[in-house]
Amino acid sequence: MMLRVFVTLKPSVLDPQGMTIQKTLAGLGYSQVEEVRQGKYFEIRWAGDLSAREERDKVETIVARVLSNPVIEGYRIEWPQEIPA
Amino acid sequence: MMLRVFVTLKPSVLDPQGMTIQKTLAGLGYSQVEEVRQGKYFEIRWAGDLSAREERDKVETIVARVLSNPVIEGYRIEWPQEIPA
Repeated sequence: MMLRVFVTLKPSVLDPQGMTIQKTLAGLGYSQVEEVRQGKYFEIRWAGDLSAREERDKVETIVARVLSNPVIEGYRIEWPQEIPA
Repeated sequence: MMLRVFVTLKPSVLDPQGMTIQKTLAGLGYSQVEEVRQGKYFEIRWAGDLSAREERDKVETIVARVLSNPVIEGYRIEWPQEIPA
């Protein structure tokens, strides 16, 4: 099963990389770009059965402890369509 | 208006960063993780009217030329819900 994970900086955390992209685009004439925030995106192929609650808990643990830094980042997991949120 | 952009390596391109994450997770006992592919995720606040075709073309240009490397990466743009795909 394929799941997708989005890791983004918390709103209160400065994003210098995104600010650089925004300034670069403004310099290229794209003044419509008011703000850019860059995050990470992961596609994970999972062998277990994600309809089981304990399997989903394992995914949560991985995302919260390995793929993101809970001090400055938040995350969102997009489960396969057949799994209820 | 807020739009989201996903930039991912083309399927034929090796992802050493994703492979390292997969191996690390396997070492931690998460053998269910068969594959990890890491991509980039951008949230862009756009001042223009994205219902206009030419504004959307500008976004496409930015994503294809500045935010991604078309030689090795593909991208997907998620428009605001009120905009038809």
